[in-house]
Amino acid sequence: MRGVVMYKAGDVRVEEREDPKIVEPTDAIVKLTATCICGSDLWPYRGIEPAEHQVMGHEYVGVVEEVGSEVKNVRPGDFVVGSFVISDNTCEICQAGFQSKCVHAEFVSQTIGTQAEKARIPHADGTLVATPGQPDPELIPALLAASDVLGTGWFAAVAAEAGPGKTVAVVGDGAVGLMAVLAAKQLGAERVIAMSRHPERQKLARYYGATDIVEERGEEGIAKIRELTDGLGAHSVIEAVGTQESFMQAVGATRGGGHLGYVGVNHDVSIPGIELFFAGIHTLGGPAPVRRFLPDLIQLIWDRKIDPGKVFDLSLPLDQAAEGYKAMDERRATKVLLTL
Amino acid sequence: MRGVVMYKAGDVRVEEREDPKIVEPTDAIVKLTATCICGSDLWPYRGIEPAEHQVMGHEYVGVVEEVGSEVKNVRPGDFVVGSFVISDNTCEICQAGFQSKCVHAEFVSQTIGTQAEKARIPHADGTLVATPGQPDPELIPALLAASDVLGTGWFAAVAAEAGPGKTVAVVGDGAVGLMAVLAAKQLGAERVIAMSRHPERQKLARYYGATDIVEERGEEGIAKIRELTDGLGAHSVIEAVGTQESFMQAVGATRGGGHLGYVGVNHDVSIPGIELFFAGIHTLGGPAPVRRFLPDLIQLIWDRKIDPGKVFDLSLPLDQAAEGYKAMDERRATKVLLTL
Repeated sequence: MRGVVMYKAGDVRVEEREDPKIVEPTDAIVKLTATCICGSDLWPYRGIEPAEHQVMGHEYVGVVEEVGSEVKNVRPGDFVVGSFVISDNTCEICQAGFQSKCVHAEFVSQTIGTQAEKARIPHADGTLVATPGQPDPELIPALLAASDVLGTGWFAAVAAEAGPGKTVAVVGDGAVGLMAVLAAKQLGAERVIAMSRHPERQKLARYYGATDIVEERGEEGIAKIRELTDGLGAHSVIEAVGTQESFMQAVGATRGGGHLGYVGVNHDVSIPGIELFFAGIHTLGGPAPVRRFLPDLIQLIWDRKIDPGKVFDLSLPLDQAAEGYKAMDERRATKVLLTL
Repeated sequence: MRGVVMYKAGDVRVEEREDPKIVEPTDAIVKLTATCICGSDLWPYRGIEPAEHQVMGHEYVGVVEEVGSEVKNVRPGDFVVGSFVISDNTCEICQAGFQSKCVHAEFVSQTIGTQAEKARIPHADGTLVATPGQPDPELIPALLAASDVLGTGWFAAVAAEAGPGKTVAVVGDGAVGLMAVLAAKQLGAERVIAMSRHPERQKLARYYGATDIVEERGEEGIAKIRELTDGLGAHSVIEAVGTQESFMQAVGATRGGGHLGYVGVNHDVSIPGIELFFAGIHTLGGPAPVRRFLPDLIQLIWDRKIDPGKVFDLSLPLDQAAEGYKAMDERRATKVLLTL
């Protein structure tokens, strides 16, 4: 089969590699229908993280081709959406809703690599969720988004306790930030402030439910959020960038006793303990337990109640993955879908 | 009146200063019955924080002597317990239970200084809570503890979501850590692990409800907590030391999706964002909103259901405050009560 390999920073190739096979009785082989490039894939691409002849990709939808003898919840022929972290969905941590910290957790990106024609998914019963039927083709981008970017934005909004009566500020207007806007709106937030400087993304943020746009950043951004919230700060703040500046902007924008949800930080982020302490806020972050939300997200998409697929603004065949990386790196695209 | 002044690090004196007077109509003047020395008072004493001819003390109980024209909830003659942070208890932040981030928040330690015969307490209605009557003398230490150390330990346990079915680990066996053990037990925790190396404090921790003692620290301490929790980590971890090592020990001891409550960090603490991120945990910290808990804590003490007063292991007259600081600095005492 063909699949993406990152030879080194900036060098992405699509090449032949061996077809995956069932290894464990809990595995499934999925023939992928679509996959995509994540903002986090740019970290090795830009040399911020190491990359040495590495398989890539962790977002995926497709049709189950084969299952191991112990797999019960998905069958060959099922159309499935999977989380970007493998989970058994039965351990104590999974049952508490933190499937990305499952005792069997494994990152799809590091070993499996779904920018490919097929993928072996371990713990298929605990990782994959079948859709109610074969989806209409126009639903594919939305379902693919559920695999990570929507699930991650949704988790961020839940972690920030977005909900009725709340003012939610979203730091970052990338794909995850935009999905967090959608999630905050769906969760019933009264006011959703998107912190964005890009006219196109501001437009999409408004489409997804943003009621206000703040262009300022850093201390000025914090001041603006405070100005919009009677000096108190937002009840809920979502951090969807992952830099030192954006993290501290998010801390500063949260009111005392408020909630900060964060879904990615780069290796340089160092949080001054004393600042976090005197902020007096709740925080919850980590790789999103997408599996927790998949059944509900799939249903919302199936019922055409949400349209996260708009977050993909460029679609290319898998063979042109290198061009997809380039487009995202050069910010010509927010998020690139790869077709198979 | 007499009151403590810290001239500089290590130099504590009791000297005459002016009696406090009502300034705002929301003020009360309290004639103090007892006060005490806080672990955080050692920071300037040891030169870790600046101290220049500074009034000291933020924990207090006493009898209301005079109130301003707008004070309604406390009357002259009332015996009161006050929080170490001034709050109006009416603003949106207070109503949400975060009185230490009140829009009128002011630290008693920095401007008022309750290691003295009297204190002017601003926003008396929102800061002070009257006891059901004049307390028996043996209740004074317990009521004084409620002012900070018990209220702070209690907040830490609430922040860590200690409760039925939970395993709670407490990092730190100082006064706050011991009070957090008491709180975790009262909140119904199934198992309370005190991380302590001092035989005397281990004994007190067991008295207050610890079911297990772990002497190891750092990575070894984390490994021990994981060993005691089927490899998962504790549901709830309370950080009651405030150093880099203890903070990261607390992060590492918390299971994925678990809750870390922290109630003090020193200026050197710097949290690696990526470690906090991959831990996948909830955190809540800050100066404790003691006012939220005071009515309940006073009642528990009044009904003799808890006995936090045991945390004071040395009692001295105010005039011997310097000896009290010395005893705590040299670890001859866990916490020193000052009588008036």
